[in-house]
Amino acid sequence: MRLSRAFLPTLKETPAEAQIASHRLMLRAGMVRQTSAGIYAWLPLGWRVLQKVEQIVREEQDAAGAQEILMPTIQTADLWRQSGRYDAYGPEMLRLKDRHEREMLFGPTNEEMVTDIFRTYAKSYRDLPRNLYHIQWKFRDEVRPRFGVMRGREFLMKDAYSFDLDYAGAQKSYRQMFVAYLRTFARMGLKAIPMQADTGPIGGNLSHEFLILAETGESQVYLHKDLLEFDVLSQPVDYDGDLSPIVDFWTSRYAATDEKHDEAAWAQVPAEAQVSARGIEIGHIFYFGTKYSAPMGLQVSGPDGKMVTPEMGSYGIGVSRLVGAIIEANHDENGIRWPEAVAPFKLAVLNLKKGDAGTDALAEKLYATFDPDAVYDDRDERAGVKFADADLMGYPWQAIIGPRGAAAGKVELKHRATGERVELSLEDAIARIRGA
Amino acid sequence: MRLSRAFLPTLKETPAEAQIASHRLMLRAGMVRQTSAGIYAWLPLGWRVLQKVEQIVREEQDAAGAQEILMPTIQTADLWRQSGRYDAYGPEMLRLKDRHEREMLFGPTNEEMVTDIFRTYAKSYRDLPRNLYHIQWKFRDEVRPRFGVMRGREFLMKDAYSFDLDYAGAQKSYRQMFVAYLRTFARMGLKAIPMQADTGPIGGNLSHEFLILAETGESQVYLHKDLLEFDVLSQPVDYDGDLSPIVDFWTSRYAATDEKHDEAAWAQVPAEAQVSARGIEIGHIFYFGTKYSAPMGLQVSGPDGKMVTPEMGSYGIGVSRLVGAIIEANHDENGIRWPEAVAPFKLAVLNLKKGDAGTDALAEKLYATFDPDAVYDDRDERAGVKFADADLMGYPWQAIIGPRGAAAGKVELKHRATGERVELSLEDAIARIRGA
Repeated sequence: MRLSRAFLPTLKETPAEAQIASHRLMLRAGMVRQTSAGIYAWLPLGWRVLQKVEQIVREEQDAAGAQEILMPTIQTADLWRQSGRYDAYGPEMLRLKDRHEREMLFGPTNEEMVTDIFRTYAKSYRDLPRNLYHIQWKFRDEVRPRFGVMRGREFLMKDAYSFDLDYAGAQKSYRQMFVAYLRTFARMGLKAIPMQADTGPIGGNLSHEFLILAETGESQVYLHKDLLEFDVLSQPVDYDGDLSPIVDFWTSRYAATDEKHDEAAWAQVPAEAQVSARGIEIGHIFYFGTKYSAPMGLQVSGPDGKMVTPEMGSYGIGVSRLVGAIIEANHDENGIRWPEAVAPFKLAVLNLKKGDAGTDALAEKLYATFDPDAVYDDRDERAGVKFADADLMGYPWQAIIGPRGAAAGKVELKHRATGERVELSLEDAIARIRGA
Repeated sequence: MRLSRAFLPTLKETPAEAQIASHRLMLRAGMVRQTSAGIYAWLPLGWRVLQKVEQIVREEQDAAGAQEILMPTIQTADLWRQSGRYDAYGPEMLRLKDRHEREMLFGPTNEEMVTDIFRTYAKSYRDLPRNLYHIQWKFRDEVRPRFGVMRGREFLMKDAYSFDLDYAGAQKSYRQMFVAYLRTFARMGLKAIPMQADTGPIGGNLSHEFLILAETGESQVYLHKDLLEFDVLSQPVDYDGDLSPIVDFWTSRYAATDEKHDEAAWAQVPAEAQVSARGIEIGHIFYFGTKYSAPMGLQVSGPDGKMVTPEMGSYGIGVSRLVGAIIEANHDENGIRWPEAVAPFKLAVLNLKKGDAGTDALAEKLYATFDPDAVYDDRDERAGVKFADADLMGYPWQAIIGPRGAAAGKVELKHRATGERVELSLEDAIARIRGA
């Protein structure tokens, strides 16, 4: 993307309404624009990150055996009356009427709809287990939306729903999602900790939240510091095998959110290992048995011919919220520092002397090598503006090219995360960026 | 995807409510399920096709220089009051109030919102031209939704919006989209014809609809038969160059929808070249000048320092509707015949004797070669059921493997579109499928 032709605007002023770093930086870097309270348009820079985050979520869901569908945003009230949640759900549910005065709603979650879909087709035990997920925009009419995309009203969520014949099967599905979540967040460079959690309005009796630690987090959390050292990605995962060892390992140390905090158990954690901090919730998994399948009449015939009511779980990831969470965990006073896996572009080529033939040629060559995963700052702007914008937007690599270096065939390569700068030949610079 | 574990349900009965082939087949093949009138959930088979269609649209928009963003579904009424459309738009607009009684709506289109976004950032002539697009769910509260996803209420649309300094620039943007549309539809195997069209509620004075011919089409169209022979993809396109020759070529023959039909011009078409038919609209492009930029106060400083009101156009593709349109153009009495570019899976491996070691081994080997772009019918079902389902779901290739063939190392390969069947060695079958 050539910046002279791109729609990658930045704001010079820090917006007054933004209280936390991620919100401030997303507005300043032109990632999003608020179109009304808690509702955002994603501009090209933000949209690219959102897509990358979404794709990682998708790949790990697929790897764990979940199957993608897409449910609509608008649902009928009737469906929610079957589960009893229509009246129970508060003013956060956006209710509306269509032109025929039918009661509808903008879905805040999809337990009812997916149960309705599944009961239409699943007839026998052979149709189980199944795990269906979708990545779709949801609406929750927060009374006071804040923190940008971290607590917006219209937000992108991945929600998966598992259907099993019995408790043992449901536990297996739960563990598959537990492990998929660990891997999903690790791939984004996040240290997410599973914690015992409340089941809230979804219901059920087993639940974990996945949180990252951040000063601006809305939850108070308590955990054993060992959990911050555990590594997720070093072990290959066979999702059909027994995942208990991985789950047991990650639940072998104390970790709980405020609501589930147990002072007696906490006292057993050595004082030097106690970490009490703020956390941001980025995922939440629930086992809730037959809470929806029973009232909605989902039944399949079992191997012995008797009818069985499947056991269910649901598994959410806040996809748009993750973009904010990643920034909270990866920024400095100059801007964002994207982990490579979710960076909007891997490289920014900064041309410091447009019109100088050697500079232009070297810059174009490097840009062409990484396009479309690079931006080329070919604008008529001062070097200082280009440096500041590249730092703000947080591309993992900056290649700074001016006449002096170009004459010597040299590129100055800056690594955003470490601040390290080196002068390299074009070939070495390409190799360094590729190898990173 | 192994069918024994997949959520790829089919219906044996033809649903009574479905009046056209694509609707019937999408329901029978388990591509979608209606969750309320004109609102559909996309099941795995349908979702895969929708994603492929969406990706082709995206690639051609990007190639033409448009930049992707994502605007939210929920908009404020205030924005639409600025253009004057809030009151003008009829009951098709889904209006709602949030918990603070603010008037909102589920966007049926985005001219207002994108103009608002653009005016926030674009300050000078250097910020133009730009073309911003998004692929997002829209809602139009049709009084009588019908024909499945062809005229649903919640539907996926690609809408692009161009901003130019002057009329010449706007015409260039218009031509870029015109050509991108030709290529987009051709890549999906559709013969889409650009036709002079009414500008309708978008406004403006230049507009083309892109239609495919189909008996079930809702529009009456008149065209010169030469247009059905023209080829799109043989010429490479330089979107920065002069696209007039391509546009002129495609507009050199008579083609108009009912609303724009001109009997005098039609009489000039030789009788033997006159084609009068039904058509399905799959794209629509508009030039409308300053219709939105002027009332909404979008201005940038020109090269001479004077303020300029940019000229705009908008460009829509019905992404979810395209899935239905592709089926209308590609089916027979047994089911769907997917063009390869949008097929949910390229290959179905039909194992006719599960448990037979040789059959299983050969089937697994072929499946592994094409996974994840293949389904493996490993269900305990009769051969007839497997044949019928594979025909219904329309995978371009079927590999039929039974004990006799397996013993001889042979695969029976069936090409869904032509019905051709050949017996081949595994290697030759793989080559044939790859080469297609």
